[in-house]
Amino acid sequence: MQRTTYPSFRATLAASTLVKAAGVHSALGGLLAQEAGFAALWASSFEISAVRGLPDASVLTMTEYLQAAADVQKVTRIPVVADCDTGFGNNINVAHMVHEYERAGITAVCIEDKSYPKMNSFVDTGHELVDADAFARKVEVAKRAQSTSDFYLITRTEALICGLGVDEAVARCRRYADAGADAVLVHSKQPTNAEVLEFLGEWRSRLPVVVVPTTYPDWHADDAAKAGVSVVIYANQGLRAVVTALRNTYRSISSLGVASHLTAEIASVQDVFQLQRLREWQQLQE
Amino acid sequence: MQRTTYPSFRATLAASTLVKAAGVHSALGGLLAQEAGFAALWASSFEISAVRGLPDASVLTMTEYLQAAADVQKVTRIPVVADCDTGFGNNINVAHMVHEYERAGITAVCIEDKSYPKMNSFVDTGHELVDADAFARKVEVAKRAQSTSDFYLITRTEALICGLGVDEAVARCRRYADAGADAVLVHSKQPTNAEVLEFLGEWRSRLPVVVVPTTYPDWHADDAAKAGVSVVIYANQGLRAVVTALRNTYRSISSLGVASHLTAEIASVQDVFQLQRLREWQQLQE
Amino acid sequence: MQRTTYPSFRATLAASTLVKAAGVHSALGGLLAQEAGFAALWASSFEISAVRGLPDASVLTMTEYLQAAADVQKVTRIPVVADCDTGFGNNINVAHMVHEYERAGITAVCIEDKSYPKMNSFVDTGHELVDADAFARKVEVAKRAQSTSDFYLITRTEALICGLGVDEAVARCRRYADAGADAVLVHSKQPTNAEVLEFLGEWRSRLPVVVVPTTYPDWHADDAAKAGVSVVIYANQGLRAVVTALRNTYRSISSLGVASHLTAEIASVQDVFQLQRLREWQQLQE
Amino acid sequence: MQRTTYPSFRATLAASTLVKAAGVHSALGGLLAQEAGFAALWASSFEISAVRGLPDASVLTMTEYLQAAADVQKVTRIPVVADCDTGFGNNINVAHMVHEYERAGITAVCIEDKSYPKMNSFVDTGHELVDADAFARKVEVAKRAQSTSDFYLITRTEALICGLGVDEAVARCRRYADAGADAVLVHSKQPTNAEVLEFLGEWRSRLPVVVVPTTYPDWHADDAAKAGVSVVIYANQGLRAVVTALRNTYRSISSLGVASHLTAEIASVQDVFQLQRLREWQQLQE
Repeated sequence: MQRTTYPSFRATLAASTLVKAAGVHSALGGLLAQEAGFAALWASSFEISAVRGLPDASVLTMTEYLQAAADVQKVTRIPVVADCDTGFGNNINVAHMVHEYERAGITAVCIEDKSYPKMNSFVDTGHELVDADAFARKVEVAKRAQSTSDFYLITRTEALICGLGVDEAVARCRRYADAGADAVLVHSKQPTNAEVLEFLGEWRSRLPVVVVPTTYPDWHADDAAKAGVSVVIYANQGLRAVVTALRNTYRSISSLGVASHLTAEIASVQDVFQLQRLREWQQLQE
Repeated sequence: MQRTTYPSFRATLAASTLVKAAGVHSALGGLLAQEAGFAALWASSFEISAVRGLPDASVLTMTEYLQAAADVQKVTRIPVVADCDTGFGNNINVAHMVHEYERAGITAVCIEDKSYPKMNSFVDTGHELVDADAFARKVEVAKRAQSTSDFYLITRTEALICGLGVDEAVARCRRYADAGADAVLVHSKQPTNAEVLEFLGEWRSRLPVVVVPTTYPDWHADDAAKAGVSVVIYANQGLRAVVTALRNTYRSISSLGVASHLTAEIASVQDVFQLQRLREWQQLQE
Repeated sequence: MQRTTYPSFRATLAASTLVKAAGVHSALGGLLAQEAGFAALWASSFEISAVRGLPDASVLTMTEYLQAAADVQKVTRIPVVADCDTGFGNNINVAHMVHEYERAGITAVCIEDKSYPKMNSFVDTGHELVDADAFARKVEVAKRAQSTSDFYLITRTEALICGLGVDEAVARCRRYADAGADAVLVHSKQPTNAEVLEFLGEWRSRLPVVVVPTTYPDWHADDAAKAGVSVVIYANQGLRAVVTALRNTYRSISSLGVASHLTAEIASVQDVFQLQRLREWQQLQE
Repeated sequence: MQRTTYPSFRATLAASTLVKAAGVHSALGGLLAQEAGFAALWASSFEISAVRGLPDASVLTMTEYLQAAADVQKVTRIPVVADCDTGFGNNINVAHMVHEYERAGITAVCIEDKSYPKMNSFVDTGHELVDADAFARKVEVAKRAQSTSDFYLITRTEALICGLGVDEAVARCRRYADAGADAVLVHSKQPTNAEVLEFLGEWRSRLPVVVVPTTYPDWHADDAAKAGVSVVIYANQGLRAVVTALRNTYRSISSLGVASHLTAEIASVQDVFQLQRLREWQQLQE
């Protein structure tokens, strides 16, 4: 029984007009997103910190985020894109980060142009952009740090999150593209996709564009593709569904004093065994 | 902002006729079980291995199980009972295990009388009991290894799982009690609670009894308490609910191409911020 | 066989006029420093990064530094003081740091007033002090984050390393003392102890003073004590001795083609067994 | 600045008549053994457990041994052979082990035919061989678990350690060779190389032979090569030299009250900076 193999994110992207990526915080989530037909996985720092009960504010360390991403990649047949926040510090940190992630078998990472420590983008305050030149230099260092040509670097601008407007977002992404980025992620928390569409209009597909429609979840993936988007990340719905499921499950057991009402609603132990590939593992011992 | 504090499992048990414990595999799950009113948490090796996409067969190491249990305990106000399988090897391993768990702030552990490596109890084959004398000696070593009088050792017999009958289960539990165990867990996978009731009839409350009604989930906790049970563990419903929730969430996004239909069904980003205690963390930076 | 217990650093300091602390990067080093009579251990970020073959520049994460410090503390009977660099980021990071270190059984930490990521103090360039007010606020947050009154916070000023003079060093340390620090560490890389003596003259023993005589190693501990020093840290001699020992050992085996010449020079396998307390562990299995 | 690259152990062995491997427990040791001209590194479980102050008795987990081996491999240009004891359990464990080590970039591992938990071979008692058929099956499972043809499996017999004689050692190694092993390690703790020479006489070079001349360190590597040995491992001299160096260093500082006498004896801080490749890292930040 060999370990699971997977294509690189670069290869996955090359084989498709649009890649849909599911946000995950666990290997189990990765297996279920893969089962549902997603082509890639987003090891979300929001999800990974939330499942630890800690804020998404550079509190968990690179060690912990990498471990979480690697745990997902180990058992899945689709590539993980690791959300690496700001790159965990300066140019030295970002080079070390590339060494560590590439070595752990992660084929794509994303870094953003905020200062370390960062605050989650959906929080009102606490955001500080780094100088575009400094971030472009960080992108150069990151690209030079990779050992294989396959490794993929997505650069994310938080210009829209910081209210600096589409022109600034486009200008920054161009700088990052010139510095060697493989794709750009433009993040927005507006209630519609308007400013992202404006970005796409100005961007003109110089490099692939990645979007995260958390606050405009009604944007159909096919429409995003037509507008020039290459990757759509559904970044946090999995974690949010887990919160609701666990809350309801624990509450009902606690109030009813039995668990029998759940049998029809939740996966069986045998279902879980299948996800664990138990039969294959057992055969090794026969 | 101080870290979260919690009572020991021993203190929690002393303060209550019946302790209901929820199976968990993450800190987030611990927070939600606590919110629902559970008095303790069961860091289940089934759940923890399943969330990693690996079988519950001593594949994850003590390091990984301990990390998972400690991550839960760090953010919760109720005690974690760590499912420690067979104690991870011989007497040397079990002493080291007690040192490590106690040091990490875990106040209760459970070890079972199967040989290492173990196989999940709900699997048909692959179970091997160790000699009762040998296990009793392991219990002695474990108790002598603890540094504080508060540390709590639950010994679990798999005699019923192995089809050896109630007399053997009772005899073994008496041995373990004599050796210093603080409580006994009698595990059964019969479709009813009949053999557990028979055990309780013979046992006569010499030490607290712990049960895990996975295959007889209709046994009301209050009835279990009346029959002489001190702790009921709902060991895996949380994980099984997560499987269903993630499966449905990912499938619907994948097939519909949007995520907007989920907004009313799943927790909001703001809900997650509250679980992360984001406001308190932010104040440190003001 | 119980795990090793140890006094807190606070208790150790209260019991002695002068505490000599040995820099360590491993549990083995901790055992040998303890054997030699040291009263405390310094889990040096320089040593810990060097033994990993990586620069002392905030490259290793808090997870890795904490693991290294905890591994030392686990087996030793004297307290570890953890070198925590800048506190790993902002106020949020420092609070999380205190939670994690205290929880792991570390009773004292040291943070310094440089910006994250830091560069090793003996490097010529790359140092940037944070504003004294901002660092004082970090000290307050750190002290409020501790759960036990025993936890001990040493604040280190890098004012002399940055060439800002003794007055600035004293002024900063006073700010940190007002903010709640338990002791101050004044670091210098001058070839003599002159500026440290000047500091001590101005300081007048308001809080205990810690020194690290790496570049003025001829300063006798007793003389330092007479001058008002409470803790002397021999921060890196152990690591440097290891480099020389391994270099010579590997070179001689490589060039001679045998290892027999080493028998008289190096510890025996039986010596190592004693350090591992093998006999006590074996008894558990008898 | 890219991370360090290295040949596989298979490639290294193919390029040389004799490979000399140095036992290590840290990345720093790996760098110094490489500097001394060794062609490979042995991530020794004896050394790795000793540096943690714990017995070499399957107390540390696979997670910890793998982390130590990977930390060494990350910064060195020569391949690490990981000492994997018994394979950490049954066939399921050994398959998982191969997945994890191969994934972490380790190109060769060694497993031995003792039962889990093992005891260090130089200890008088506590050894139990597993059935040769069962171990042969474990070898098959391990070989089928690898993903790349490059991965290398050394099987080690403890037959001589258990006093079963050379015939049994040869018979076992033949079984393991038939099952797919890439090389055999014959371990002896006799004061001379006599029984190893006898083994080599009977073995007749069917697969490469690995030896560990700890108790017969006067056997010259060239003579071993002439007798049919392909790999000589100097398994623990590094650790033993570290014990002596740290003991002397700490004792002298403790008794003299100064550290100035060490300056001429130990590596300088600048030496350490070079081993850390500090200059290259600094350039990233310029």
